[in-house]
Amino acid sequence: MIKVNENFLRLKSSYLFSEIAKRVQEFQTQNPKVEIIRLGIGDVTLPLPKACIQAMHKAIDELGQASTFKGYGPEQGYSFLREAIAKHDYQQKNIDISPEEIFVSDGSKCDTGNFQELFSQDIKVAVPDPVYPVYVDSNVMAGRTGEFKDGEYQGLVYLRSTKHNNYLPDLPSQKIDLIYLCFPNNPTGASITKEQLQVWVDYALEHKALILFDAAYEAFIQDSTLPHSIFEIPGAKQVAVEFRSFSKTAGFTGTRCAFTVIPKECFIYNSQGEKINLHKLWLRRQTTKFNGVSYVVQRAAQAVYSEEGQQQVKNNIAYYLNNAQLIRKTIQELGFHCVGGENSPYIWIECKQDSWDFFNFLLHKAGIVSTPGSGFGKSGEGYIRLSAFNSLENVTLAMQRLKEVFNS
Amino acid sequence: MIKVNENFLRLKSSYLFSEIAKRVQEFQTQNPKVEIIRLGIGDVTLPLPKACIQAMHKAIDELGQASTFKGYGPEQGYSFLREAIAKHDYQQKNIDISPEEIFVSDGSKCDTGNFQELFSQDIKVAVPDPVYPVYVDSNVMAGRTGEFKDGEYQGLVYLRSTKHNNYLPDLPSQKIDLIYLCFPNNPTGASITKEQLQVWVDYALEHKALILFDAAYEAFIQDSTLPHSIFEIPGAKQVAVEFRSFSKTAGFTGTRCAFTVIPKECFIYNSQGEKINLHKLWLRRQTTKFNGVSYVVQRAAQAVYSEEGQQQVKNNIAYYLNNAQLIRKTIQELGFHCVGGENSPYIWIECKQDSWDFFNFLLHKAGIVSTPGSGFGKSGEGYIRLSAFNSLENVTLAMQRLKEVFNS
Repeated sequence: MIKVNENFLRLKSSYLFSEIAKRVQEFQTQNPKVEIIRLGIGDVTLPLPKACIQAMHKAIDELGQASTFKGYGPEQGYSFLREAIAKHDYQQKNIDISPEEIFVSDGSKCDTGNFQELFSQDIKVAVPDPVYPVYVDSNVMAGRTGEFKDGEYQGLVYLRSTKHNNYLPDLPSQKIDLIYLCFPNNPTGASITKEQLQVWVDYALEHKALILFDAAYEAFIQDSTLPHSIFEIPGAKQVAVEFRSFSKTAGFTGTRCAFTVIPKECFIYNSQGEKINLHKLWLRRQTTKFNGVSYVVQRAAQAVYSEEGQQQVKNNIAYYLNNAQLIRKTIQELGFHCVGGENSPYIWIECKQDSWDFFNFLLHKAGIVSTPGSGFGKSGEGYIRLSAFNSLENVTLAMQRLKEVFNS
Repeated sequence: MIKVNENFLRLKSSYLFSEIAKRVQEFQTQNPKVEIIRLGIGDVTLPLPKACIQAMHKAIDELGQASTFKGYGPEQGYSFLREAIAKHDYQQKNIDISPEEIFVSDGSKCDTGNFQELFSQDIKVAVPDPVYPVYVDSNVMAGRTGEFKDGEYQGLVYLRSTKHNNYLPDLPSQKIDLIYLCFPNNPTGASITKEQLQVWVDYALEHKALILFDAAYEAFIQDSTLPHSIFEIPGAKQVAVEFRSFSKTAGFTGTRCAFTVIPKECFIYNSQGEKINLHKLWLRRQTTKFNGVSYVVQRAAQAVYSEEGQQQVKNNIAYYLNNAQLIRKTIQELGFHCVGGENSPYIWIECKQDSWDFFNFLLHKAGIVSTPGSGFGKSGEGYIRLSAFNSLENVTLAMQRLKEVFNS
């Protein structure tokens, strides 16, 4: 008899964004005339940078000719892209990362979801709270948690990030083996300083722990003192893996390209305490279960690093951050406490009521789709997330509606 | 202390094709003047069909305009592609598969590698021998095997497929829960009749087993009596999942698109023997750890089903099968026993000596890269695989060289 992986049955039934989509659809059906403004899911709206479009057209023409056709590429990504990433995102910023340490993939969701496969089932895992659900659910599926009870999975350590600690979790009191961190944070939009990140790297060095650092939003950092990469922190290369994505940086959510950086000096341990090279382990995983990213998409990603590409990406980020500032300003003027929106496209708003109630209130009174904070975990209760990924026109209109709702 | 998944440490160190690449590179360095002809790895060489090229250019222009830009798509794939697949590959052939039962992905390697996540760790798994290494390695990583000993992983059931059973494995004598089958087969090129496949479906129905059916090479089937899909077999929808790919069908090895079909009536079981819907389970896996295939690539795949696309794909398949016939004929004239090459791009040749010795012989005497059969498992020892994926000119030249080597 073919038996199920019973860990899957522990998962809460629905993914946050499916529930939102359902509620929005119901509202729209009942109110067909309302022009809904979507500030919920963090999906980009600006077109792909022109440099990427041009690069893709060129790549496609190569695929149409036998002499330039491309079949299977390297599972880790083409050298042209890995070299561009290493040079622009790391070496030019004095971070010593080589092209060989970079693994190109079709998304950070896949990489952050699959990465836990490399570890023993009995490790102790800590996740931020609120949290990007993929970190949690992938560990539930792998059997590293108990049942879901009182809004939490038993066995998982939640790193509370609320107003009370300025959205920066304290070090865990118990010994942790695997730590997920995300800065600029999704969903809160909070950022971390070098000094604060050093504390986590030191913890990992001391306890032989590993940090999975999700930097999908680093391109939004404006404050020049903040770290873009965990590898700016001394010692991090021994104890950290970094996930980055072109999704939010260059509008690739539907084009699909990301990368994961595993320094060659990063080691984990077998049960005898002997060192195991993490880079080789992920290479084995990827060569076995992944076949590389579409050639056309890798050429598009490479174009992000061209002079024009860099300028176009900067313009897009500036556009979204202008939206974010507008949201932040309006929300604060209306008397709400919030964080984010300065080095992040997300604004995390304390709503002083049940998250889903406030979600419904915004939807029904202002036709605005938000994301209820409780969908990101227990510490998200009492908050909602607004995203700056929309047109300036829509964001302006949404803020006008909010003012009318709250000032009337 | 962050501990490794020790199952990974059981894996044999190198992936077959890396070893081949290493040997070929060494030979080329020592013999820079030899023009090596690659009939080893099964990678296509003809350019992408024109219909796909056109569709991709159009899709890219959509991504360059805000009004037609596409962000995140559905994890399961766009409806336009799922509908085209269901209609052309199934419904028009009187196979009752709906678009909702199709999951678009970036490759059958990923899907066949990831699919085992859905099952309990203590199921009994059977794989063909010789076998596509991904089926085996992904189960080793998941901890469903013991150590590698005498060319086999302990605990795994190997379904021998050799000259003696006409490359069609017998039903296992012990009770199996999960069965991997691949027809037309990689690496042997052997095919299966409807009657022979019915035997496996009946076995699965009787034992509540599940068949993972890899049909990546179905487009090469010429014999109209052979099944293209396991769902042509009565009862299969309850006990089978089918993996298909655009890689070999339409030259997508570097473009990356495939799909997996999970009928809604397919169930697996929990430890109490209660039914669990497999379709929902994979949907949960994919929505958690996957973010869909690039929009541009999905439009290219859709174009495979256009009238021009279908004709172009047929022409390409015919071109490769002509190569295959040439290889098969030459090999047989030279007195070797072989299988495949008629409904498959692969020719599986009995070499009556050690596989790697014969690999070296062909490389050094004829400058031909083959794939040693032993790389696919114990029953592959004494065979090599030649692939028809190359130009007619190269295949013709390779066959001339073979004749000279063996007739001199």
